[in-house]
Parts: sequence; C-alpha cells; structure tokens
Amino acid sequence: MRIKLLIILLVVNVLASAQSRHIINIPNIPGYQTLKCDFHMHTVFSDGTVWPTERVEEAWHNGLDAISITDHIEYRPHSKDIVSEHNRSYEIAEPLAKQLNIILIRGAEITRSMPLGHLSALFIRNANLLARDNVNDAIREAHEQGAFIILNHPNTKEQQPVWLDEYTQLLRNGYLHGIDVYNGNEYYPESFNWAKEKNLTVFSNSDAHRTIGMMYEQAQQRPITLVFARSRTEGGIREALFSRRTVAYFENSLIGNSSLLEPLFFASLNIPATPLYIQNGTSNLIFITNNSDIDYELELVQPGVGFDLPQKIILKARRVTPLEISGNSNEIAKTSTLNAYYQVKNLWINPEENLIITFSFRNI
Amino acid sequence: MRIKLLIILLVVNVLASAQSRHIINIPNIPGYQTLKCDFHMHTVFSDGTVWPTERVEEAWHNGLDAISITDHIEYRPHSKDIVSEHNRSYEIAEPLAKQLNIILIRGAEITRSMPLGHLSALFIRNANLLARDNVNDAIREAHEQGAFIILNHPNTKEQQPVWLDEYTQLLRNGYLHGIDVYNGNEYYPESFNWAKEKNLTVFSNSDAHRTIGMMYEQAQQRPITLVFARSRTEGGIREALFSRRTVAYFENSLIGNSSLLEPLFFASLNIPATPLYIQNGTSNLIFITNNSDIDYELELVQPGVGFDLPQKIILKARRVTPLEISGNSNEIAKTSTLNAYYQVKNLWINPEENLIITFSFRNI
Amino acid sequence: MRIKLLIILLVVNVLASAQSRHIINIPNIPGYQTLKCDFHMHTVFSDGTVWPTERVEEAWHNGLDAISITDHIEYRPHSKDIVSEHNRSYEIAEPLAKQLNIILIRGAEITRSMPLGHLSALFIRNANLLARDNVNDAIREAHEQGAFIILNHPNTKEQQPVWLDEYTQLLRNGYLHGIDVYNGNEYYPESFNWAKEKNLTVFSNSDAHRTIGMMYEQAQQRPITLVFARSRTEGGIREALFSRRTVAYFENSLIGNSSLLEPLFFASLNIPATPLYIQNGTSNLIFITNNSDIDYELELVQPGVGFDLPQKIILKARRVTPLEISGNSNEIAKTSTLNAYYQVKNLWINPEENLIITFSFRNI
Amino acid sequence: MRIKLLIILLVVNVLASAQSRHIINIPNIPGYQTLKCDFHMHTVFSDGTVWPTERVEEAWHNGLDAISITDHIEYRPHSKDIVSEHNRSYEIAEPLAKQLNIILIRGAEITRSMPLGHLSALFIRNANLLARDNVNDAIREAHEQGAFIILNHPNTKEQQPVWLDEYTQLLRNGYLHGIDVYNGNEYYPESFNWAKEKNLTVFSNSDAHRTIGMMYEQAQQRPITLVFARSRTEGGIREALFSRRTVAYFENSLIGNSSLLEPLFFASLNIPATPLYIQNGTSNLIFITNNSDIDYELELVQPGVGFDLPQKIILKARRVTPLEISGNSNEIAKTSTLNAYYQVKNLWINPEENLIITFSFRNI
Repeated sequence: MRIKLLIILLVVNVLASAQSRHIINIPNIPGYQTLKCDFHMHTVFSDGTVWPTERVEEAWHNGLDAISITDHIEYRPHSKDIVSEHNRSYEIAEPLAKQLNIILIRGAEITRSMPLGHLSALFIRNANLLARDNVNDAIREAHEQGAFIILNHPNTKEQQPVWLDEYTQLLRNGYLHGIDVYNGNEYYPESFNWAKEKNLTVFSNSDAHRTIGMMYEQAQQRPITLVFARSRTEGGIREALFSRRTVAYFENSLIGNSSLLEPLFFASLNIPATPLYIQNGTSNLIFITNNSDIDYELELVQPGVGFDLPQKIILKARRVTPLEISGNSNEIAKTSTLNAYYQVKNLWINPEENLIITFSFRNI
Repeated sequence: MRIKLLIILLVVNVLASAQSRHIINIPNIPGYQTLKCDFHMHTVFSDGTVWPTERVEEAWHNGLDAISITDHIEYRPHSKDIVSEHNRSYEIAEPLAKQLNIILIRGAEITRSMPLGHLSALFIRNANLLARDNVNDAIREAHEQGAFIILNHPNTKEQQPVWLDEYTQLLRNGYLHGIDVYNGNEYYPESFNWAKEKNLTVFSNSDAHRTIGMMYEQAQQRPITLVFARSRTEGGIREALFSRRTVAYFENSLIGNSSLLEPLFFASLNIPATPLYIQNGTSNLIFITNNSDIDYELELVQPGVGFDLPQKIILKARRVTPLEISGNSNEIAKTSTLNAYYQVKNLWINPEENLIITFSFRNI
Repeated sequence: MRIKLLIILLVVNVLASAQSRHIINIPNIPGYQTLKCDFHMHTVFSDGTVWPTERVEEAWHNGLDAISITDHIEYRPHSKDIVSEHNRSYEIAEPLAKQLNIILIRGAEITRSMPLGHLSALFIRNANLLARDNVNDAIREAHEQGAFIILNHPNTKEQQPVWLDEYTQLLRNGYLHGIDVYNGNEYYPESFNWAKEKNLTVFSNSDAHRTIGMMYEQAQQRPITLVFARSRTEGGIREALFSRRTVAYFENSLIGNSSLLEPLFFASLNIPATPLYIQNGTSNLIFITNNSDIDYELELVQPGVGFDLPQKIILKARRVTPLEISGNSNEIAKTSTLNAYYQVKNLWINPEENLIITFSFRNI
Repeated sequence: MRIKLLIILLVVNVLASAQSRHIINIPNIPGYQTLKCDFHMHTVFSDGTVWPTERVEEAWHNGLDAISITDHIEYRPHSKDIVSEHNRSYEIAEPLAKQLNIILIRGAEITRSMPLGHLSALFIRNANLLARDNVNDAIREAHEQGAFIILNHPNTKEQQPVWLDEYTQLLRNGYLHGIDVYNGNEYYPESFNWAKEKNLTVFSNSDAHRTIGMMYEQAQQRPITLVFARSRTEGGIREALFSRRTVAYFENSLIGNSSLLEPLFFASLNIPATPLYIQNGTSNLIFITNNSDIDYELELVQPGVGFDLPQKIILKARRVTPLEISGNSNEIAKTSTLNAYYQVKNLWINPEENLIITFSFRNI
C-alpha cells in the first residue's frame, strides 16, 4: 500500500504543546553546581513502557539536568515487535535531549542472574559490545569503554543483602564504582553501609519501567541523585561520579557525606546576620528563610548555656520559620557567641547518624 | 549470543507495584450507568510514545471505564524499529485490560490529507483490512466491520472549520456517527453546532500521543466522554454511542443534550426535602450537597415572586453549599411552591446556551 | 456622638458570602452515627483570638457535627476590653449554631495550677457558677450540673505524665470521665494507657486559641473526636461520651477500642463478594474501594497457607487498591475460605498495639 | 473571687507554635521594593470576628509586608461586650507587629450612609477624633491628621456605580487619594476607570471581617495591593501611595500603570541573552523562566516578519516555558533583531486594555 499525499498536518511539534518545566529548588554549593540526575531507567527497547524520547521529556518536565537510559542488554521482552541493536534507545533520545538541554549519558544494564545480578554501566561508547555470553567479558568490555559501574538495588528479596566475594573481585579489578542506596521505592541501609566501607558513590535512581507520572503522583517526588559537578556537562558529571560527589535524595531524605550535606544545608538557608540582644528573661526571634524544596527537620542535641532553644524546628521548604532564643540565666551576659547545635533528622551521614549543624549568633 | 540462566527476578508484577485507582465521582442517571471513556489515543505502534499496556494502566489509574486505542493506519513513524501489523496494539493491551476490568474497544484512525482528514473507527474487527490505497475503500471496510465512525478534531488550523460536501456524503452513506467537540486541549464550537444539526454523537477525547501524566498535570483533568449505557459492557457502550447518549466533559464543562445533562445535574446533588417556613422578612437556608467532582456554577435567570435568591451560586464539588431564600413581600404567603430558576453556566446544550434548571421547594 | 442614618448596607449576610462546607468522609457503623466533634476551644472571651461565631463557622466549614467552646473560667487576659460573664461566648455562638445545624455544647475550662491543672466540663448549665475560689467547689458544681469532665493535655512538660492521687480522688467521686490523648499538636501515649486502665473516654481536641486555619494548613487536618451516637443530638453525644464510644482521630491515626475501630474499618471499604478462582500458580486481583478519608496502612501478620499475599498494602483514601492473592502450593485447592490477617498500622487499640483485621474470601 | 496561684503554664508563646511564613514571589523593580499590603480589614473592635493580633499573625503567615486595621468608627455591633476607644485595635496589634516585622499602619473606616459611604483613612494619628456627628468634620479631621483617604468598594449594589458630586468635592478639597478596584471578592471596572480619570491610587484590599483562612481557601489568594516603595517603612509606603505607585493584585490579575506593570513583568522573568541562529526552515527554543507566583498569559498581537511565533503562551509561575521561533521565509536572514509583540492578558492598564510587551532577540 502507498499513501501518496503528504500527511503534513501530523507533524505535531512536540515542544509547542509541551508542558512547562518544573524548577527543583536545590542550591549550588561553593565550588560546585548541584545537578539533579536519574541514572537508571528503561524504555520499550528493553522492558520499559515508553519510547526513549518520553524519558527525555519527563526529565525536562521534572526539572532534571541529566539522565541515563539503561536498557537491559539481556532482557528484551518486546523483541517480537521491536528489533533493534542496543544503541538504539540512546540514538532516538539524543536529538531531543540536545534540543531540551538535557545531558543524556549513554548507558546500559548488564542483567544477569546471581551472584552478579544487575550492574549499570554509564558513559559507555557502544552498548552492542556488552552483549557477551560471559558476564565477566561484558563487564570488562564496559570497563574498557571507560564505564562508571553501579551495583543496582543489591538488596531485594532475590538478591540477599550480603556482600559477595564477586563484588570484592569487581572492586579489586576497578570494575565497581557506585551503588544504589535508593531504587524505585526502596531504601537499602546495607548499601549505604557498603558505600561508606568500600568508598562507593551513592545513588538514588528511579529504575523506571513505567512512566514517571504513574510511579510518582507528583513529578517532584521521583528519586534523584544530586551530583556536585564543576560544570553542567557530561564530563563534569563523570568527574563528579568518580570523585564520589553525590547525594541520594528521595522522599525528603538526603544521604551522603557531611562534606556535601553541610554546605547544601547552609546554602539552602538565609539566616540574618544582624546581632542579637538577648538578656536573662528576654528573647529574640531569628527569621530563617529556607529557599530550597527540602523540609529540614531539626532536633536540638545540646542545650545552650544561659539560653533556651526550641527542642524541634521544621524549616519548611520555601517558607520563613522563626527560631526563638530566650535568655534563662545571667550566664548569657558572658557569652558573645550563642551556638545552637541541632541534628538534621532527614540528612543522613551514616545509616544511623544524622548530620549535626551549628547555628552561631552574635549576642551584644 | 545466548543467556542460559533464567532471569526470573525480572518478572516484576506490574500490579503489585501499581498505584491506586482514582474514583471519578460522576453519578449514574435513571436507567443508565454513566461510563467514563476516552476513545482516541495512540501508542508506539503509530506515533505515540507509550507501549499499549500503559494506556490501560493510565485508564485504570485515572478511573476510566473504557478506552479505545486508535493507532493511525497510515502514519507509523516508528516503523524502522517496530514492525507489526495493525491489530498488534490491541492484542498487547487486551490481556491487561481484562485483568483490570477496563473495557478495551478495538479501534483505528484512518488518517488522510484533506478533505477527509482523520476518522476514528471504533468496534472494528480487523484493523489490517483498513489499510487501503483509496480512503473510501478504507471507510467502507470499516463500515462493513460495523464501525462507529468519528470525525476527529475537524476544526484545527489546517482543517478549516467548514462542513465539507465530503462529510455530507459520508453522512448519507451512514459512514459518520460522531464528532469531537473537544480533542486534546482544544474546544470546537462549530463541531458542537454540527453535532446538533446533523445528529452526531458528541465526544471529548484526549487524542493522547504522549503520556497522560505529561499532558495533564492532574490525572483527573484528562478529557472524558461520558457514555450513558444500559450496561458496563462493550455492547452497552456501542448501543449508547449509536443512540447518541454521550456528554463531552473537559475542564469542568459538560456538553450534551438537556435530556442527559438535567438528570446528571440532579443526580449529583442531595437537596433536603424538608419544607420551608419562609414569610415576608424571614429566610431559610437550604444546604445542598454536591457529591460529584463537577463544580456547578449557577446564575439566576428569573427572580422569585415574593422572595429573594442569590444571583450566583457555586455548588462546589464534594462540598455542601447553602442556598438562602428570603421572603421580601407578603406575596410569599400565597405560594406554597417556591421555584428557583437557574442557568448552569458550565452545562451547555448549545454553543451559546446553558441548561436551565428549576429547584422547587414547598413552603408552608 | 449620634449616627442617625441607618447603616443598612453593613448588614452583610455572613451566610450569603460563606464558603462551602467540606465533607468529612468517615462512615457510620452499625447501630451508630459517626459524629465529628471538637470539644475544646477558646474565644476572645478567655485567651482565644476569635469571636464565638467564628468557632461555629469554622466547625461548619470544616465539616464537623458538634463543638464545645470551653473558655477558661479563671484566665481572661482580654478582660481590660471584654467585660462579660462566663456564659457569654455560648450565648453569642448559639443562634448561628442553630442556623447552621451545628450542635453547640455548653462548656468551660476549669484552669488551675497543679495538681489538678486543666479540666473541661461539658454539658454544664451555667458557667458562672464554676467561678469558685476552691477548685474542688468548682468541680463539684460542674458535677452537680451534670457535667462530663475531661482531663486535658495532662502530659505536657509542666504537668508531669504522672497519674496523681488527686486524679484517683476525682475518679472515686465520679468527677472524671474522659482524657485527651491528643491535644493541639501533641499526642500523649500515657493518657492512652490511663484511658485503658481507668475506663476513661478518649478525646482528640484542638484546644484552639488561634484560628483553625492558622493552626492547620488544611482544614481537614484539625484533630477530631469521633463520637458514635444513637442520634445526631446533644443528648445522643452525651450518652455516647458517658458510654465511652469515641475514637481519637488526628494525623491519619485513630485511637480507640477494637469494638469501634473494626466496624469503622470495614464500613469504610467496599470489598467485592464475588468468589475467587485461585489455584497453585494462578492469582486473582481483588479491587478494594476505600470510600473514607482515612489512608489505611496494612501489614501482613501471618502468611496464608497455600497462597501469597502482599506484605504491605496502603488502602488510600477515596481510591481503589488491588489486593493480589496468588496460589503457591496445592494446599490452596483444599481451602474454600482464604483468610488474610493484617494489622492496620494507623489504628491503635493500645499504645503499642494495632488492630488486626481479617479479610475472608471464598475460593472455588 | 480570687485565684491566688500564678497560672504560669498558660503563657503559651504564640510564636513558638507559630506556623511558618509563606513567601510571596513577586520581584522588586528597578528603584523600588515591591511591598505586599492589605489596607482594609476589621477586628472584634468593630464588626470583625478576630482579635487584632490575629490580623498581624495572618499577615505574617501569608507573607505580607504591611497592613492597616481599619475598624469602623460608627459601626460597632460588639459594643455590648467590648467597650474601648477607637485606637484600641491598633494598640493591641502593634507590639506583635513590631516583633514580627510587619508594618502596621494606623487606620480607620469612616462609615456613613450614601452619598459618602465608606472611606478608609490611613496614617492617622488618633482615631478617636474621627468620631464626629458630621461626616465632613470627620473627613476634615482625618485630612488634618495627614490621612491618605480611600473610597472603598464604591460599586456595590447599594452604592450605584455613579461618580457623585460629593466625590468631586472631596477631590477638590484634597480629601480623596485612592479607590478600591478590588474589594473582598468583587472587581469594580468603573472604579478602575475613575482611578485613571481622576488620578487616584488603585487598591486591592480584603476588607476582611472574618478570618482570611475562611475567606480564601489558600492564604496566597487574598487580595493584595502591591506598593512600589523606596524603603520598607511606613514612610516609604506613605510616599508611594501619595505618588500612586500601586498595583491591585487579585486572582492572578494585576491592574495598574504600564510604567509599573512592564518592569514587574520583566523582573519576574529570566530570558537567556544568548543570540539565536534561525534561518528559513529552522527554529530555536528560548527557555523563559518565570520566578514569580504570577501566571502570565500571553497572546500574540502581531506576527513576525519572516518568522513564526506561538499564538498563545502561558508563562506559568515558578516554571520554565519554551518559546519556539521558526523561520518561515528568507526575510529572516535580513533581520538581526527579532521582535515578538505579545499582550499579557492578565495585566490590565485600562479596564479594556492589556499591557503589550516586546521580547527582542538577536539573530545571527
């Protein structure tokens, strides 16, 4: 059959009808741009339910900076209908990514049975060459292409939360660089421990098979890996990942090193620098503005000497919250700097340990 | 390459992780079930961006009763990667539709240049047979398969809002049964006029190419065709469509015949039957409960004799709204029935005309 | 000064401009109506910031059935500007309550220092008579007026969470009937224990001093005492309170007896009665509709014999959630009734114990 | 009766339990700070339902910079219970305003029958002196105290939308400076016309009698007068009002002079300065960030020469929206500056006229 007439009216401009892009309010920190990324997702080219361009659209709409499409090499249940080589999803998504200024990182998921399970390889050059009978050959090939390799969701029911000798072997060979502490809707405290012990980069990835809109009622709720990069480029992200400058962000929790979480916390806030005038029996209100999308939940770890502080404060996202300091003894007259020590209950530097921050105020 | 090991861990149960289903609160009317339907959408098998199962998931999640996947016969831009015959999207979606109790109607879009443009054929039996060089052959084939045929978005920039001789010809042959008054994000008042003049069934369809979640920020905002059916079955829908028992529903507007809109309006409300006791100078409050998801916007068309009524009332969705009636003369003592006449500004029985309803209260 | 002209235009009809009333979707249970109540709040006549009518408006707007205004007898910081006797806030609120069909219960708060602290007296007849030098005289007077007496927020920092001899004495005299397990924004597990031990009626009250809109971002989030009454009348509420038929409801948690929580749980749900057809290796989906505003969070307490159930389910408010049952052995063929045992993590029958419910399905 | 014990536990710190403060994202413009104000509201000291401090709390919570409490001089329906002089509501609110850094402007409403109706006097020094039998004496007194006088809601049913001789007389005497174009929930196009003709400052005020939370479902929806002030002080506001530097803001509409609306529009946006590379047949996307809380609704007023622009664009609040420019003829090669002319449908410079803005892009 041949349709002669040009069906010009069908060339719907996707962009003309596009929704607007959300802005994720998470600030840069000194020296680094804070990029919002998701490095694990699928399309119809493996077992996902969306066309590759839709992953780019979702990322743009949700306010992300970078994504990687990581279709399974070995598992392609739609192969009856879709016959293509392994680089195809990247190729289809890439022009739109360029147009929308989304950094698209070429990736693939090496998907085997235990022990090695599922590994994402990012920054590869040719996914076809990962299709090898022997899993070790596939991993070595990824490595030789310069891949950054992530151990995915190692902690599901099927994959026991046990650190295996095979993982140690990968590490020794320089074949393992990162680990999911959050995947889809699941948090893995063991992975967080392993990341600390083995010096692995932490990730929070969606592993989306279906549409993001169907997985998370609100677009902003998708899991995000924050990458602290020297530049908003693929190279910048690569350098940051190999240097372990990431924070896993999901459901208002952030997991990472204190060297990243602490500047992120303070970069989110605007705290007036005006000095206080507190005496025994008087109090001052300090109005703290949280410009980020993160609700910070603070709990006092140590009472002040000579002054009272609230036991709990929630610094709500994009709101101003008052912090009240009251003098409770004459001790306060002797201290020119009032320090308030709080742990931030939703910032985690270990599976059992929160970041502790210090607010310092001059009192005159 | 051969992967010997069974990759059992990949068999993710879509349903186990599924989101919950929204409930669309639009009541049945006497004699009919009110089914929420969308009869026009695409998948990767034509120029859409989702796998057919995702359309069923979306429909289930959004609270719909029935959908039709209407992939283009003639326009298949993914054909480099996807090689299949025209019934394939239905076949893939059908088992999940059965499992989720979504009525899936086999359909296709005959997609030609002007004058005939785009026609959806619903209830067909074999989409492959619609792939004909001559558009008239394709339409005749659809008709012979028993199709219900809809003129889609006839009113876009390219397709002038002019009723063409070709449409009249289709009508004469019994090849045209319905028309979109709403498609995607566009409303066509001309189509509404034509529906009235030519006795066509009205539709509000998404014509979704991308995911519903990307097109509409909230799932409940997707365009819906309300079908008033004798049963929640494909046969029930077919009978209702051919009998023109539909209402086009989008952005809190409803378009249709007063014989459907009026019972829908009253079925949405709970109005206390207790008699009033109003005299000159006194007033009563009547608390009206709107159990539907529709905000009804009322405007007084005629003042009462002997009593005052509010000029405007909004009966908000799922809320209780007070209606105050005040006696303003001794006339009220003479009337045992107080009638309040309001037009409902978001219920349309003609492009320029709202439904007028009457509230009747006994006054004793 | 004298203003002669009638300022008629100022007679704003509060109701004409009133917002609509929310509907709180919490079902009745067999034998009882489920009334939504708040029995503790203040006005400008003690230390609150609103006029008494505003409490009625708030209650109407928020969807409550009954409230009690419980201004402090002893603490009236606005007395420089407001000079009135103690029944005044009730008298001002009462006509509007009648018009809006809100049950207004005459109350007062006896407000002393420790040990007796704060006691609310409901269903009193004359608040003025509670103004007595001796607190015991005040309590006895309340009792003689037929009061239902509640020990308020006994567990704040100042009022140590210790059951005092004075409370035991009140109990012995029949002067103490209820206790707050939730007050304002605080939950008191000790109070819940005492309620169990001493047979006290449980309450969740706002203790609102400021406007409800300023205390809770969304009106529906205010604390509510659910009262299971034989009739929607003051008498019905009184009988229910003295019979301890209440559930304390706040932040999606419900606290009370299993004899109330269990019927409330099942009355919230619509579970299809159609029998299942599950065999070893097959599964069925059961679609459960939750018509209430409560998200029920279920966790499996005991695996089925011969079938698998999801470990966790959230039955989201006003949504349909699928429950999947899969046969995992031939045992299933032998059982005609499949029982699923779940604990409901947000329904509490003891401070440490959740309600356990059983879903029963016929399998054929 | 005497209560001897100090009831110390009652001294609830309002601020410790205070909600957080919303941030209204409306930018400053060159030379001026943009202050968010509401100059008309009532308390229990006239016919309102809240204590004066609550008006300050509301303002703080809602993100306002300044308010005026304008209790009626002549209408005090609570006088049976509240006996105070006319400065009392200011005195009660003032300490909290200072603590929360809300600018509280002393005001009063002179409330007479027609023709003069309701006039707000701001920046007065002693409200008691406005209590005069003769309305002209009251107005003269306000004027002598240095008042800025606003004609309130002149356009309700009772007060015919007719410009009266009495108003002209006020103007001639220098007794009238501003006018409500929005009051409560009502918009007055006539007032907007009069403001243009008579050089009056425009206002959008809540005229709140009840709580803001009960009048507007979301705090951000309250009517706001934007004041473009040289400093965030009472003096700064006074100077700005007398200089007519205000914009009335309500329900996503803004009314004012183009000299204010145009810089406000552009200060809200971040438009990349990078040059375009568009030729006949190619297109560029320009990503426009709207950092404000205002949705700007744009409609093309004049097509480009040699290039196509979207007919309609909505620059959604706090989102990024793409603007696509496509070359459609060789003319585009000749133009180094592409101008796009849009009217902003929600910015009004006359009752029938929108602000027209120009986007200019360099094309190389």
